[in-house]
Amino acid sequence: MDEQSVGIVTPRVARFEKPLTFSCGKRLHGWELVYETYGELNASASNAILICHALSGHHHAAGRHAPDERKPGWWDACIGPGKPIDTRRFFVVSLNNLGGCHGSTGPRSTQPGTGQPWGPDFPQPQVGDWVDSQALLADHLGIDCWAAVIGGSLGGMQAMSWALRYPERLRHCVAIAAALRLSAQNIAFNEIARRAILADPGFAGGHYLREGTQPTQGLALARMVGHITYLSDDAMALRFGRELKSDDPGDHEFQVESYLRYQGAQFSSVFDANTYILMTRALDLFDLAADAGGDATAAFEKTACEFLVLSFSTDWRFAPARSREIVDALLAAERPVSYAEIEAAEGHDGFLLPIPRYLDILEAYLRRVKT
Amino acid sequence: MDEQSVGIVTPRVARFEKPLTFSCGKRLHGWELVYETYGELNASASNAILICHALSGHHHAAGRHAPDERKPGWWDACIGPGKPIDTRRFFVVSLNNLGGCHGSTGPRSTQPGTGQPWGPDFPQPQVGDWVDSQALLADHLGIDCWAAVIGGSLGGMQAMSWALRYPERLRHCVAIAAALRLSAQNIAFNEIARRAILADPGFAGGHYLREGTQPTQGLALARMVGHITYLSDDAMALRFGRELKSDDPGDHEFQVESYLRYQGAQFSSVFDANTYILMTRALDLFDLAADAGGDATAAFEKTACEFLVLSFSTDWRFAPARSREIVDALLAAERPVSYAEIEAAEGHDGFLLPIPRYLDILEAYLRRVKT
Repeated sequence: MDEQSVGIVTPRVARFEKPLTFSCGKRLHGWELVYETYGELNASASNAILICHALSGHHHAAGRHAPDERKPGWWDACIGPGKPIDTRRFFVVSLNNLGGCHGSTGPRSTQPGTGQPWGPDFPQPQVGDWVDSQALLADHLGIDCWAAVIGGSLGGMQAMSWALRYPERLRHCVAIAAALRLSAQNIAFNEIARRAILADPGFAGGHYLREGTQPTQGLALARMVGHITYLSDDAMALRFGRELKSDDPGDHEFQVESYLRYQGAQFSSVFDANTYILMTRALDLFDLAADAGGDATAAFEKTACEFLVLSFSTDWRFAPARSREIVDALLAAERPVSYAEIEAAEGHDGFLLPIPRYLDILEAYLRRVKT
Repeated sequence: MDEQSVGIVTPRVARFEKPLTFSCGKRLHGWELVYETYGELNASASNAILICHALSGHHHAAGRHAPDERKPGWWDACIGPGKPIDTRRFFVVSLNNLGGCHGSTGPRSTQPGTGQPWGPDFPQPQVGDWVDSQALLADHLGIDCWAAVIGGSLGGMQAMSWALRYPERLRHCVAIAAALRLSAQNIAFNEIARRAILADPGFAGGHYLREGTQPTQGLALARMVGHITYLSDDAMALRFGRELKSDDPGDHEFQVESYLRYQGAQFSSVFDANTYILMTRALDLFDLAADAGGDATAAFEKTACEFLVLSFSTDWRFAPARSREIVDALLAAERPVSYAEIEAAEGHDGFLLPIPRYLDILEAYLRRVKT
């Protein structure tokens, strides 16, 4: 096993008997969070870092569940001994959010009193609800204050929300490829993804588990929308160009089409459609400044931590301009903030990739974080 | 009626008994083109302008079919007495392309020998096939040489293809918001649109007319993809922002979602799904330089006309950079070309809109075109 890997990891489950009230007013009773940890919590519990996942992410961020697992966790490039989020210094916690489909309570869990899966009736979580549930997980783990809360995309929104809701419970907030709120275009892309799922007869109004059907095509289409828009135009051109799949002049399929079809089919076999709807909706509804009358500066004035904001040059769904809005609001609120725009061809997907300058900046920043 | 309108217009149908062979090798027997004309053809037939339509366009480009028709033709802003394409000087021809669903032979027409609609069996036209059919329409109308061939988007590809295939049959080529070929990203968006249609059970393998079904949801989704990507991020933000549709805190629908849903439903009631598949496929397959070993300069060396190339600053599906590739290839081929990039917030849709600088440039250019 690679020296810089956290090695074999085993997920754990934390169960909470106290009901959690979502911002929509609905309550969750007897809920569970699945999570992983990497590294050791120190005696003063001052070296803990929370990783918040994005749209289709989960708790398995680093290492492998078994030696023969094909791929490591989704952020293995960043987390491990000697990596930017260095597990020799930090105790790293990564969870699956409520409403997810990887082990935490969500649409696939049994709805109390019905014996049936929640399905489409699972309450709509918002980013703040996730943060509240993560705060209870921190209590459960004996962590009063995170050394840092880190996330990319929707995860970056959670990290910023932590700084607003629990200003005394984190010392650093790292928001990567995030935004104060989605643009109309972003909402529209999410709406296409949702419509594709809803229109699939296999979706069965969200009751596909009960009905024994699967919205395979709809979920695959939703994933295709994500795939295209999270990559840059240049990255797609580099990867696929206009190559046809076959030399048969009657076969007009381009490589990019068959790739998307394959990726879409793969995704629909491992992800839950109701979760996809909930997660995209949470993205749409996030508005950092909503409770401050739309004024992000006023919102950030409540925060007490330091910030690192990162963006990627070719990311057009969470463009550098969106990150600069975060930075500008933080500066106006006189909060300490570092910012870097990473030159990279990979679009929004850049935040998941081992881009040297990106890892270097993250490492340098975290080296300054006291444990 | 507005002085600058061409007034009431009546479509006509040209029938061709000689078979047309498509580039895929299939032949069309006894085919028809529906078209409209505006203005008068002069005695030497030297004042004719051909308008080529884009993805979801048709022959009805200007004027009204009846005094109470709600909207005029799709390019009424540009065509009429005193407008940039001035019908006091020019005889303007606008047709519906083969494979269309507005009257020309297409998937809704009866397949000879079967008594059934062509449906999904209609041969795949390519841009060059359309140009060949348009050349036969020109013969039919007694037009040896167009004063200009003009088109936006897919229409611009037809205009450029005219210059390559029939160099002696046009004096000016106006390619607006076009490209030498689509990018992988553009192909991918088209593929999403097609998959949405194919996945709709109402599509019935393309035999919805025979089966009495309709791929309403799929076609609506396809249109939504077009709508979002043909508008700029800024244009969507200006039009919709993040306004919710209702004040009900339990109703999370944004304005942009209900707008898209409405537009999608509208479109699916007036457009044909098989046509949408054929038209997007023709877009994907277009490659101006394909017959010149990928060398656009070599391709353009065959041309004999003058060119006007126009692009729109916020168009990200047919970006200004794509238009500059056309211009660069023309310059390298030592062909006369004028180019302007129009500052406009409306993205690709700009080419359909009455943007003053756009209309001014088009008017100034066409004023120099001899009749």
